[in-house]
Order: sequence, then C-alpha cells, then structure tokens
Amino acid sequence: MADKGAVTIECRAGDVLFEQGQPGDRAYMVRDGLLEVSLIVNGDKQVLGAVGPGEIVGEMALIDDQPRMATVTALDDCVLLAIDRASFRTRLDATDKTTRHLLNRFIHLIRAMAARLAESRAQPR
Amino acid sequence: MADKGAVTIECRAGDVLFEQGQPGDRAYMVRDGLLEVSLIVNGDKQVLGAVGPGEIVGEMALIDDQPRMATVTALDDCVLLAIDRASFRTRLDATDKTTRHLLNRFIHLIRAMAARLAESRAQPR
Repeated sequence: MADKGAVTIECRAGDVLFEQGQPGDRAYMVRDGLLEVSLIVNGDKQVLGAVGPGEIVGEMALIDDQPRMATVTALDDCVLLAIDRASFRTRLDATDKTTRHLLNRFIHLIRAMAARLAESRAQPR
Repeated sequence: MADKGAVTIECRAGDVLFEQGQPGDRAYMVRDGLLEVSLIVNGDKQVLGAVGPGEIVGEMALIDDQPRMATVTALDDCVLLAIDRASFRTRLDATDKTTRHLLNRFIHLIRAMAARLAESRAQPR
C-alpha cells in the first residue's frame, strides 16, 4: 500500500479504533501490535478474530460504503497506517473486475451473516 | 474469466450444486439462472443469499483449500461455467498481494461467522 493518502497513527491497548454501526472513511494497515475484531450480538460480545502486523482492517466500509460491520479494539499499544477512502479506492479500482466482484460478494455475505447472528441467540454448545 | 480450464454445465431447478462440508475443486460462473446459498445451522436451513448471471460461486474452497462453507442449490434451470482449481489459482496468483490478503481475510471471517452461527440457535426476532 503506497504511503500517499496514508498517515501513521498510534493507539493504546484498550482503545477502540472504530465501533460497529459507525460510518467509516479509513482503512488501517497494522504496523505493530494486535487488534481484536468483535461483534455485539444481543448485548454479548462475540470475538471474530484478531489482526496483526501486515494485515488490514476497516476496509469493508470503504469497499461497500456501509457502516462498520464490527468493532475493532487494540489489544496492545499499536502503530497503524491510516489509509483514506480516496487512496484505498484508487487501489481497488486497479484490481480486475472479477476480483472486485468477489470482494463485494464476500462483504455482502459477511454482512448477511452478521445479520443472521444478530437474529440468533448465542448459546453454549 | 478465460474459458481455458472451464467447461459449461447445466443443472435443473432443485439440483444441489455442492453441499456444505464437502471438499471443493471447482468454482462456477453463473451464465443463466439463479442459485441459492444456504447454511444448515442445527438442522435448520438459513438462506444467506442468491447468485445470478455474471456472479461466481464456489470459489472460497479454491482460495483457502477448506471444505465448502455453504450449500448451493439451483432455484432455476441454470447454465454454469465450471472453472477448475488450476485455472482459478492462476488467475488469483496474478492479483496483487494486498487484494489476495483481503480475500483470504474475508473468507477467514466468513468461516468464523459460520462457526458462530453453528454455535447459536436460530430464533425468531
């Protein structure tokens, strides 16, 4: 990811980078540290995974222009490269049509599954 | 999608193209007709969406080499272009690293959410 349109930011362990349902105008490339991706389902937090160095988070809202699907919280002190919408979209537009279609379909599926999760009640096995 | 490594197949309304949990070695580009993507959660079918002309289905198993995440059933008589693993992977390898990373992450997230759905009990709103 080119550094044009990107700015380095730092966050502390426990900081919420963004919250489920908020509008999103930035994606983040993790330089250092670990962040947790979680979903609030009927008031309960469900951890979906973690992102670490070299990984990107927050790009979904930039691809489909919908609110943030999940909440991302720093587990460590983190260093992130924040990428603005225009830079991200420029890069995305350079991707071939089939791949863009796949990215969109995956995001659509992720949002559909998040809605299904919200309709269901979490129960232990 | 190039036609090399691709073969046209037809299926009838009601046919199951592939089933959740099976190994997968083909992706399908829909030429004609509509197919339903569904998940069996605690014995109940949950419809996640539909794919139609110009869309691809079944590519996830080719990207991450895991079993089929969902079941895909033809809603109409369909014409599909079946794309083998080698052709699909050749195309994928030509995609830039960041995009491949995103595709992998989305699939990882989709599978994590499918597992969460399987742990939960579907309830009416």
